Amino acid sequence: MKAKVIVMPKRSILDPQGVAVRDAMRHHGLPGAQSARVGKMIELEVGGATEAQLHEIARDLLSNPVVEDYELVIEK
Amino acid sequence: MKAKVIVMPKRSILDPQGVAVRDAMRHHGLPGAQSARVGKMIELEVGGATEAQLHEIARDLLSNPVVEDYELVIEK
Repeated sequence: MKAKVIVMPKRSILDPQGVAVRDAMRHHGLPGAQSARVGKMIELEVGGATEAQLHEIARDLLSNPVVEDYELVIEK
Repeated sequence: MKAKVIVMPKRSILDPQGVAVRDAMRHHGLPGAQSARVGKMIELEVGGATEAQLHEIARDLLSNPVVEDYELVIEK
């Protein structure tokens, strides 16, 4: 089974890395840069796992639920 | 314009963070974990940018072309 886990900082939380990217874009000729958010993309290949198990991995291992949200996309 | 940039380690390059995730999954009750790759997901909101400019930002600012590939997804 292939799956992707996308982990992004929660919208309500300041993302300093995103602010740095936005400012760098403004300095690189894109004054219209409004916002940037930087998160993680994890691609998994795993056999014999249930969707519930993958949610558990995404929540407990791959993200920090205090400051991040995750999205699990199962591909096949 | 909204866009996403996905930056992943090249397939030919060892991804130690991915190996660590795979091993952790195996220790968390998923012995069938085959591989994991860890990359970055950057969400951008920018006005007045061309697709070529966004490719330039993705290549020069957001990824390291020596060891990473990027994918640019323009949403609207």
